[in-house]
Amino acid sequence: MNPPSSLLLTDLYQLTMLQGYVDQGMEEQATFEFFVRKLPTTRNFLLAAGLEQALSFLEALRFTSEELEWLSGCGLFRPTLVDYLEKLHFTGDVYAMPEGTVFFPDEPIVRITAPLPQAQLVETRLINLLHFQTLIASKAARSVLVAPGKLLVDFGLRRAHGAEAGLLAARASYLAGFSGSSTVQAAPLFGIPIYGTMAHSFVQAYEDETAAFERFAYANADNVVLLIDTYDTEAGAAKVVSLAPRLREKGIAIQGVRLDSGDLADHARKVRRILDEGGLSDAVIFASGNLDELIVQQLCGAQAPIDGFGIGTRMDTSADAPYLDCAYKLEEYGGKARRKRSEGKATWPGRKQVYRRYDADGRMRSDILTLEDDRQEGEPLIQPVMRAGKRLCAPPPLTALRERARDQLARLPHGLRTLEKGPDYPVQVSATLRDLAKAVDEHRT
Amino acid sequence: MNPPSSLLLTDLYQLTMLQGYVDQGMEEQATFEFFVRKLPTTRNFLLAAGLEQALSFLEALRFTSEELEWLSGCGLFRPTLVDYLEKLHFTGDVYAMPEGTVFFPDEPIVRITAPLPQAQLVETRLINLLHFQTLIASKAARSVLVAPGKLLVDFGLRRAHGAEAGLLAARASYLAGFSGSSTVQAAPLFGIPIYGTMAHSFVQAYEDETAAFERFAYANADNVVLLIDTYDTEAGAAKVVSLAPRLREKGIAIQGVRLDSGDLADHARKVRRILDEGGLSDAVIFASGNLDELIVQQLCGAQAPIDGFGIGTRMDTSADAPYLDCAYKLEEYGGKARRKRSEGKATWPGRKQVYRRYDADGRMRSDILTLEDDRQEGEPLIQPVMRAGKRLCAPPPLTALRERARDQLARLPHGLRTLEKGPDYPVQVSATLRDLAKAVDEHRT
Repeated sequence: MNPPSSLLLTDLYQLTMLQGYVDQGMEEQATFEFFVRKLPTTRNFLLAAGLEQALSFLEALRFTSEELEWLSGCGLFRPTLVDYLEKLHFTGDVYAMPEGTVFFPDEPIVRITAPLPQAQLVETRLINLLHFQTLIASKAARSVLVAPGKLLVDFGLRRAHGAEAGLLAARASYLAGFSGSSTVQAAPLFGIPIYGTMAHSFVQAYEDETAAFERFAYANADNVVLLIDTYDTEAGAAKVVSLAPRLREKGIAIQGVRLDSGDLADHARKVRRILDEGGLSDAVIFASGNLDELIVQQLCGAQAPIDGFGIGTRMDTSADAPYLDCAYKLEEYGGKARRKRSEGKATWPGRKQVYRRYDADGRMRSDILTLEDDRQEGEPLIQPVMRAGKRLCAPPPLTALRERARDQLARLPHGLRTLEKGPDYPVQVSATLRDLAKAVDEHRT
Repeated sequence: MNPPSSLLLTDLYQLTMLQGYVDQGMEEQATFEFFVRKLPTTRNFLLAAGLEQALSFLEALRFTSEELEWLSGCGLFRPTLVDYLEKLHFTGDVYAMPEGTVFFPDEPIVRITAPLPQAQLVETRLINLLHFQTLIASKAARSVLVAPGKLLVDFGLRRAHGAEAGLLAARASYLAGFSGSSTVQAAPLFGIPIYGTMAHSFVQAYEDETAAFERFAYANADNVVLLIDTYDTEAGAAKVVSLAPRLREKGIAIQGVRLDSGDLADHARKVRRILDEGGLSDAVIFASGNLDELIVQQLCGAQAPIDGFGIGTRMDTSADAPYLDCAYKLEEYGGKARRKRSEGKATWPGRKQVYRRYDADGRMRSDILTLEDDRQEGEPLIQPVMRAGKRLCAPPPLTALRERARDQLARLPHGLRTLEKGPDYPVQVSATLRDLAKAVDEHRT
């Protein structure tokens, strides 16, 4: 999927800078890297996501005639720039960590090498795409870690920040290990399983709660999960039990109930008993309502008889950490390493690679950040994915990326698998890279 | 602007419920209202926004043949539903508070009355549109209140949650009183002024910082704001001073400098002195870098000589409160008032109106929440905007909505104009409404 967006979806400074580059023919190869400066206090690791959308964006990069016309007429740019943009397409190389890879601060997950104007122009949208899905995948992974064996469904579209956020949150959370999403469009777009049954308004529209349940079951005989908390949760469960025989006569099985308010552990226990005593021990209990990984962990820890969770707003907005301190920085231009030294925002220069070492049991032990041509022990995490503007292979299926994420989460050090802050994962900086940074600093004062 | 989105951008339960309604011909008029249940702890009021996009969505509501085909083939729905959806368009009435209106918990800002399946189906996207812009406008208003007379520019696109979030954040912050946005597309789409000059990478791409400044000035002679913190802020300011005469000879004036790191108040004072002593007292100082309204307030309070602020990530993600506890609830069906009673989530039934009373000096004093036909003293805030699926008037220009927001912010009670938590604004519930809620409860057990 290439999310529909205009090339004008960028910061104005990209275009004013391009005016400068184009005027002076500054088209030498530039290398930029996307990385996260530091972890939010409530994250022990991050999960890379969004590469697929980033590559689609690069492949399709063209200005339309309407956009060019607007740029011509807006009074900010010279015809030289508009002519340049008319011919522009992306001819660069991309190296990246595969989506679903665990990564840590200062480790680039995407590296772009292209003529300077191209590599610069794509900055805003690349960050916009990589940041958001990485943010959500990293948040979703926390629920996945604390609720093994539970059905986890993304319920967040309505309070996600706009349409694209809702769609990409469905993708990122599925990649991280969720079972699916309530967002219908995620099915045709990404092949994600979709879930959903009824809202309170359905129950309210009927004079009688049992009638609402019965009518819903007739209309959706293969998907009978009934929302029982509109008026009184346990009374709702009792109505489900009394309705069940009537439905069974028509060959309809009640698959489960949903709780959406109150003390979920307490309600779940009472409802489980009511269902079991009413002969509905196969019916599952699904819970939702302002959930996040902390509440899910509590509910699982308390052995609440809940089979699945709908996790919405707090995941789709990454509410405890709604952004990452990430950047896309120039590391090399015209064959020379570059480095930003702004206070608190200094970067490591050059084209980089990350090598990962594992313990004997396959768990991640430490990473080393170094230059591309400085071969180190361990697994190199950054791989070529696009050359001269063309993908090197077809997009991997989302299920394969989900498998990778599962494998990566299984290989996390024990101390990083908890919701509490764990020890810092060791990321060394190689001597080669330190030497280069020093040389760059000495050259430029 | 109608953000491009599919009608499949919805929760699955909307469609499973519609299957139920359609099977039983439940098409009587339903009234739903959108409101916020409670304020985030760091908000004293909210600013309504997003109505324009919501109305565009309703006007354009049609399933495409591709969407219908997918629904037919997905195995979840009967042909009766697909046939119904093929003919569907929105025929309902909409009442709303104008965008830019200050509002408080439990006060509906949008009310929809339409045949039940229509009013239900639109829930997810309506919330998605109204929630996000209201969230951002309410956040942006805080910066507007603490920085009177300063240039405030939205810089948040890159870390906004996807494309639509970036665009709608530009709109919502401009509506709330920002001067403009760095997002280029906000200009052709919404007529919003755009701002931007250069990134650190531009400076880094040159061997010499002064050369970068000079080349940028030649390329963008009418927009010379130079980013001076790539290596050393004060040294950067001195280079700007020494460059100025050379540019002046060519008729180019340096309009300002931008600081993006370090102690902004301290740098601004030193840079102001360097610029003034260098004959550049007309050049403005613009600051950016992880700003929000708290930091802007500090900088303004410390009399830091900063003329404008670029506020990005923390505004576009509403980082301190990344979502609102909002809902779209059924309040009436088939002429009968309805009410949800779920624990902690009970709603007020019926079609409602909000009357606002003012003090003698024009400041807001108190609101009363009542039923539509219960005329109370004060200004009714909710007005008809769409009848039988057609807008009652053309979309107001964004500048007019911005004027309204400005007027509303000026009329806030003093205690609510601060960043600190103020007193709760008084919102009474009328006796008429309380009586109706009681009657609804007694009728349904």
